[in-house]
Amino acid sequence: MRVFIAGLGLIGGSLALTLKERGTVEEVMGMEVSEERAKEALSLGLADRIVPFEEGVTTADLIVLATPVDTIPMLAVKALNRVQKPQVVIDLGSTKGELCEMIDQHTRRSRFVAVHPMWGTEYSGPQAAVKGAFAGRTAVICERERSDEDVLQMVEELLRTLQMPVIYMSAEEHDLHTAYVSHISHITSFALANTVLEKEREDRHIFDLAGGGFESTVRLAKSASSTWVPILMQNKYNVLDVLREHIHQLQLMRRMIERDDTTGLREVIDRANSIQRIIH
Amino acid sequence: MRVFIAGLGLIGGSLALTLKERGTVEEVMGMEVSEERAKEALSLGLADRIVPFEEGVTTADLIVLATPVDTIPMLAVKALNRVQKPQVVIDLGSTKGELCEMIDQHTRRSRFVAVHPMWGTEYSGPQAAVKGAFAGRTAVICERERSDEDVLQMVEELLRTLQMPVIYMSAEEHDLHTAYVSHISHITSFALANTVLEKEREDRHIFDLAGGGFESTVRLAKSASSTWVPILMQNKYNVLDVLREHIHQLQLMRRMIERDDTTGLREVIDRANSIQRIIH
Repeated sequence: MRVFIAGLGLIGGSLALTLKERGTVEEVMGMEVSEERAKEALSLGLADRIVPFEEGVTTADLIVLATPVDTIPMLAVKALNRVQKPQVVIDLGSTKGELCEMIDQHTRRSRFVAVHPMWGTEYSGPQAAVKGAFAGRTAVICERERSDEDVLQMVEELLRTLQMPVIYMSAEEHDLHTAYVSHISHITSFALANTVLEKEREDRHIFDLAGGGFESTVRLAKSASSTWVPILMQNKYNVLDVLREHIHQLQLMRRMIERDDTTGLREVIDRANSIQRIIH
Repeated sequence: MRVFIAGLGLIGGSLALTLKERGTVEEVMGMEVSEERAKEALSLGLADRIVPFEEGVTTADLIVLATPVDTIPMLAVKALNRVQKPQVVIDLGSTKGELCEMIDQHTRRSRFVAVHPMWGTEYSGPQAAVKGAFAGRTAVICERERSDEDVLQMVEELLRTLQMPVIYMSAEEHDLHTAYVSHISHITSFALANTVLEKEREDRHIFDLAGGGFESTVRLAKSASSTWVPILMQNKYNVLDVLREHIHQLQLMRRMIERDDTTGLREVIDRANSIQRIIH
């Protein structure tokens, strides 16, 4: 199998490394935005060669779109414009509504699968790519009923190779759920980092005590704006809903602390504890 | 050395286990709030025997207060009322202002050291105690100038045994800094957990996608209200200041998303990225 990956950063690069390691691809062609990143990706072994989009899309068996989510809908249309059966196009982006709308009426829509691998780190770019990524994490396939059987089979086989269990949902469900369990976590991390960094301007020693708990809540604040601005904008309405609810929850706690309402606080914290049902 | 530890939960219990492992204590006496927890602590080997406060305080070389922070000031006064040179009293609580004020004019103030080991997990109670805790984490000593030389020496020796580097500050500085780098992280985690749990009531599958990023930001939401309500109340004014700033940062991001202000969002995220200077 020959694979063409547009975007050899954290996600695309990790896919390349992992597929090569498993021996499931003969050749990985790649595309990168700049000369510099292309060189970096080559030297890291993320691709065998760098090719123009046109060439990758017309010669690969599998075309993978792993660029920032604001560029994926356009690349998806351009890829579908050029592919022929049995070629397959997938994307690995974190938002699906806009993408699925853009390709909804494309004559070759059935050659496409919208995939979201629920894996990532706070790092980005070719150097962030790691071997053995994805294993054990869930992959979401959106609008499965819109893809041909052979296309779905190829993609599900690929996800088995990556050792990812698959779940299916609509693009709307996907974007709602990711707003709650991924996008809001990034916003709170960015805001928390800036809260403390703001204070550091007057008090340089504020970080002397930063320990384990702090690290785990602000880890995601290292994530790149080039990845996250497009995600937050593409999922704008869901993100705003969750953010509104989150600010409301913080204001509730704030009023309780102001009023010495220890009973209320205890209830709020005890309720939050039931998150143990879900994460371990 | 004989040690008496009031409170054999996460912190006190871990201290007992770690000191025993290092062979630096002959006997650990312990105190617990309930019969049940006392039995649990004994069966876990956190103490050699359970004794009344009076007995522990009058017979131990080192008295350690590791109960919830709202009970520490009163226990500190009661312990100081009973100790004689060369006995030493320390606490391991996460807030220091109220405590240091309560013992400020005690005739035996100099037998006390206010210590905050910057270590913890999201678990609590005797079962949460772990061997080898504390190593490599910072310990804060507040108001060092208020303790006798022999007292400080004993405590610093103890912290060396635990492999904790020591830093010194006033109680006010301590409470301000911990509000920023520890207490606010817990509030955001509790609020985030409740934001998502609230949504789960209408959409049971919201957690199907919960992955790595989410887990790291809500991990602290498992923390016990019996520990955290007292901490938040004792550090009320600092916590409210930080919370106000944090809500402000979230509202800033919310307005930017509402207005499609991608330039502003990029700046906010790029600024948050500089947290990399501090955490690794």
